[in-house]
Amino acid sequence: MAIQSEPRTIRAPRGTTRSAKGWVQEAALRMLMNNLDPEVAERPSDLVVYGGIGKAARNWESFDKIVECLKDLEGDESLLIQSGKPVGIFKTHPHAPRVLISNSVLVPAFANWDTFHELDKKGLMMFGQMTAGSWIYIGSQGILQGTYETFAEAARQHSGGSLKGTLTLTAGLGGMGGAQPLAVTMNDGVMIGIEVDPKRIERRIHTRYCDVMVEKLDEALRLAEEAKSKGRPLSIGLVGNAAELLPEIVKRGIVPDFVTDQTSAHDPLNGYIPEGYSLEAAAELRQRDPKEYVRLSKRSMAKHVQAMLDLQKQGSVVFDYGNNIRQVAFDEGVKDAFNFPGFVPAYIRPLFCEGKGPFRWVALSGDSQDIYKTDELLLKLFPENQALRRWITLAQERVAFQGLPARICWLGYGERAKFGLAINEMVRKGEISAPIVIGRDHLDSGSVASPNRETEGMKDGSDAVADWAVLNALVNTASGASWVSFHHGGGVGMGYSLHAGMVVVADGSEEADEKLSRVLTTDPGMGIIRHADAGYDKAIETAKERGVRVPMLGI
Amino acid sequence: MAIQSEPRTIRAPRGTTRSAKGWVQEAALRMLMNNLDPEVAERPSDLVVYGGIGKAARNWESFDKIVECLKDLEGDESLLIQSGKPVGIFKTHPHAPRVLISNSVLVPAFANWDTFHELDKKGLMMFGQMTAGSWIYIGSQGILQGTYETFAEAARQHSGGSLKGTLTLTAGLGGMGGAQPLAVTMNDGVMIGIEVDPKRIERRIHTRYCDVMVEKLDEALRLAEEAKSKGRPLSIGLVGNAAELLPEIVKRGIVPDFVTDQTSAHDPLNGYIPEGYSLEAAAELRQRDPKEYVRLSKRSMAKHVQAMLDLQKQGSVVFDYGNNIRQVAFDEGVKDAFNFPGFVPAYIRPLFCEGKGPFRWVALSGDSQDIYKTDELLLKLFPENQALRRWITLAQERVAFQGLPARICWLGYGERAKFGLAINEMVRKGEISAPIVIGRDHLDSGSVASPNRETEGMKDGSDAVADWAVLNALVNTASGASWVSFHHGGGVGMGYSLHAGMVVVADGSEEADEKLSRVLTTDPGMGIIRHADAGYDKAIETAKERGVRVPMLGI
Ligand SMILES: NC(=O)c1ccc[n+]([C@@H]2O[C@H](COP(=O)([O-])OP(=O)(O)OC[C@H]3O[C@@H](n4cnc5c(N)ncnc54)[C@H](O)[C@@H]3O)[C@@H](O)[C@H]2O)c1
Ligand SMILES: NC(=O)c1ccc[n+]([C@@H]2O[C@H](COP(=O)([O-])OP(=O)(O)OC[C@H]3O[C@@H](n4cnc5c(N)ncnc54)[C@H](O)[C@@H]3O)[C@@H](O)[C@H]2O)c1
Repeated sequence: MAIQSEPRTIRAPRGTTRSAKGWVQEAALRMLMNNLDPEVAERPSDLVVYGGIGKAARNWESFDKIVECLKDLEGDESLLIQSGKPVGIFKTHPHAPRVLISNSVLVPAFANWDTFHELDKKGLMMFGQMTAGSWIYIGSQGILQGTYETFAEAARQHSGGSLKGTLTLTAGLGGMGGAQPLAVTMNDGVMIGIEVDPKRIERRIHTRYCDVMVEKLDEALRLAEEAKSKGRPLSIGLVGNAAELLPEIVKRGIVPDFVTDQTSAHDPLNGYIPEGYSLEAAAELRQRDPKEYVRLSKRSMAKHVQAMLDLQKQGSVVFDYGNNIRQVAFDEGVKDAFNFPGFVPAYIRPLFCEGKGPFRWVALSGDSQDIYKTDELLLKLFPENQALRRWITLAQERVAFQGLPARICWLGYGERAKFGLAINEMVRKGEISAPIVIGRDHLDSGSVASPNRETEGMKDGSDAVADWAVLNALVNTASGASWVSFHHGGGVGMGYSLHAGMVVVADGSEEADEKLSRVLTTDPGMGIIRHADAGYDKAIETAKERGVRVPMLGI
Repeated sequence: MAIQSEPRTIRAPRGTTRSAKGWVQEAALRMLMNNLDPEVAERPSDLVVYGGIGKAARNWESFDKIVECLKDLEGDESLLIQSGKPVGIFKTHPHAPRVLISNSVLVPAFANWDTFHELDKKGLMMFGQMTAGSWIYIGSQGILQGTYETFAEAARQHSGGSLKGTLTLTAGLGGMGGAQPLAVTMNDGVMIGIEVDPKRIERRIHTRYCDVMVEKLDEALRLAEEAKSKGRPLSIGLVGNAAELLPEIVKRGIVPDFVTDQTSAHDPLNGYIPEGYSLEAAAELRQRDPKEYVRLSKRSMAKHVQAMLDLQKQGSVVFDYGNNIRQVAFDEGVKDAFNFPGFVPAYIRPLFCEGKGPFRWVALSGDSQDIYKTDELLLKLFPENQALRRWITLAQERVAFQGLPARICWLGYGERAKFGLAINEMVRKGEISAPIVIGRDHLDSGSVASPNRETEGMKDGSDAVADWAVLNALVNTASGASWVSFHHGGGVGMGYSLHAGMVVVADGSEEADEKLSRVLTTDPGMGIIRHADAGYDKAIETAKERGVRVPMLGI
């Protein structure tokens, strides 16, 4: 086969005819290609999928060789991928993974961007981000579901399982923050999103992620009050600066039910507009006197956080959404800045304690009907789960597929295996037209060590312990996942995380039944044991209820 | 079963009756216990096996629980060990490993001794070193073969193939360093080994690894000179501190032929005694002011390395023996610290390119006859290998077994699988009385990333790339090793290495045939592809000759 190692447009094959020797190999092939589909990838010609420089293969030569290897790979062989390059093929056995991947892993003392870039330049490395280098990215449906799930959990904890009749106040409707208005209305709530840049709001309205845009606080409050009292969902994009408007809201004695923030506070120079500055004036100052800009920006953030704290005292449920704004305010002298929690310890970790996380699946047929059938199956299997029903219904209405049709939802221990086996049954019976690929983000309950994000503030202080991510990769390999990956640096950059991924294919076979039931048990099971070991009651309870074996706890 | 979690004397059961549900589980049980046998372990009451603080289990509660779990473990279950603690049991399948281990792995930005010690104190971590936490340490013999080979290769390169009439100066006669005197005398040389703890020297004399112990430098030099001039092999354990005695040797203008060091410099707090401190005073300071201890310890290492550099300038052949002492000295301001090479690029890498490394096996019966039979088998299988014959002969004469009888020799790609299958055949036929455990050190051809040791000065500059170690752990898991381990920091300390281990049991079954042939192929195969990828001709040749598949090289 001639190798044609030039950038070109990649799109995964569809349908029921495969060019590889088995469906697992074919699945890896299509998912690699799907990651590079122009509908999915941010910069496909550079093999960049998402996350700045997160790639699916090291270079086009490697891409072509991986494709060639996958087509040729037997059902008892395993292909080894080292930072996006195929480096070996070994005989293993049918119940072993067909692909084993390690991306961007550096000896810790050298685990920094400088060393990485140097090795990258030499052609020896690639940044795998999380689902880019492990061939299971599915486009922007992911951030929407994650945000939806965060608000759903907030609702479960504080307002009876729904945001109906509640007001959420936030700021920042940018790349990721723009998912907030839709995530809130999907949970039946009302929200005001303060955004200094009207173009950003317009864009959210265009994509139907946000309902209305207003220029005045009074009007926003009036609309919000009206919707709230009628129990109607509504998202309002309010043009303005959070550092000005939040203190004003405090002054008026208004107490939203939930308060958070997704301005890009992690970057005071480029991600946050100081109070009193128009976009133009801000751009000018940023250029002319960046130091002064940062000083003003940080001072505004301190006010912003102070107002969040004031609202918390008045009774609002307040949380940080992973933009580091508490740290900035704290450094500016707001001593109580960390009085409100980060979103992971507050809302995501309880889910992790039940083995829940960003579970997803993809139809290899390319046929949207296959996904709609799995949607139905899901609702049939978990009829009691109202949040799930809402999500699926709304996703069907609101989410456009990118590349191969896919769905994401957060399922926990027990549910994943049950669902996976039921999908396999449908594939077997021909009710779904081709095999389904089942995977997840690396940001999952038992697969990641990342002290500034997923493992921030662990109860026992084990934030930096990464044995768990390694064990996750090993046990998924031992359980027969279709491919397994281990990465360094995803999400928070070089040095700050280690994490593992897995994908398992439902091809309708009996062998797949065995693999699915094992992998979809051990994988979320890692989340249970990791959090049980750290002393979280919910994880310990889940382990006891579900029979997850944790020897030192006598379970 | 009542848990009796107190320090006590551990010795592995012998014989053909097992208490676990299968031989693989029984093997893990006996090997864990054997690691803590007082004949094997350096400080068994603290669960310390070797390497300063390299432990087999996190604490006695964990040890007891691991034993309980292994006895109870089914042949299709896997036990997960996180830094020496049993944290979960999952259903996998018969061809999966029975135990999966991750020790001391930290998120890279936190991968330092301070964080480790803090977590260790909180009971959340353990240092696994290499074969300590992965239950395949076999006492000094384990390192004897490697040390013997290293000095033999040094002799080939610098003194006509023998150490006869030469003086080797080293320090540290601990768990691994204690092999040096015998390795040198086996090569017909004379050596002085400086060791601050007389008990360590006594122990080496007791096991016949060292010939004499002296208290004074003058006497050591006199004895050495006498033996050298008569061409007689002699090993001298000299009580003293290397940081004091090496500069003294420089001052006296004495130039040994070879100079190296095996103090536990990789662990400045626990592994090195600062100059001027007695063992007792050191222990007191370590307890009272660990920071100050580390400061003094590092300062002494700088002096120690400076003296090694001075000897190199005078004409000694100087090499680092993998304890990271150059890095410490460099950080302390000794700018030339890396002027002498590590032993791997100097003497070991050519062997790695053929998949050779510290292969070893242990008789679970406890019967030395079983090992002698494998010795015979080995010589029968590889009659053309003269070095092997010499080693086996000397080992039979000079090596006293510690704990369960064991043998080590360096076998390469192809040889390992052939030998493993032949052993399994003998077990099957009852020619060997009980199953044999087959494993290796983590320091092997394709299993370690350690830029100051095993991967120092790689041809393509990929020293810091650790994907290979991850892939090694994954592929051995996929191939059905009996247990697989992944560690951080072994040999060179926190931050400086990532490495993987494996053990596979020859219990005479057909299933074991399959596992042995896969694991003993993929495992050294990793060494071939890692070095082929880095551009070493010998590895590329070996891949071609032996049919190891390296896709990007078209092999
Ligand atoms: N940890 C997580 O999982 C997670 C998830 C989502 C977002 N985040 C964090 O949230 C932040 C936002 O991410 P993004 O991708 O949406 O960034 P972005 O830069 O695309 O959007 C930030 C938005 O904030 C607006 N803004 C800036 N200053 C403002 C002010 N003073 N008042 C009102 N609006 C202001 C900007 O105009 C912009 O639209 C980042 O810090 C990101 O790291 C974290
Ligand atoms: N790369 C390899 O293959 C390889 C092989 C063997 C050892 N090593 C390295 O060598 C080191 C030693 O290993 P070990 O298992 O023998 O460790 P160990 O802790 O059992 O022994 C170290 C010995 O050094 C002695 N010592 C400490 N400070 C001293 C000083 N200032 N002067 C004289 N003696 C001193 C101690 O008393 C102890 O006996 C480790 O760092 C290990 O990683 C590497």
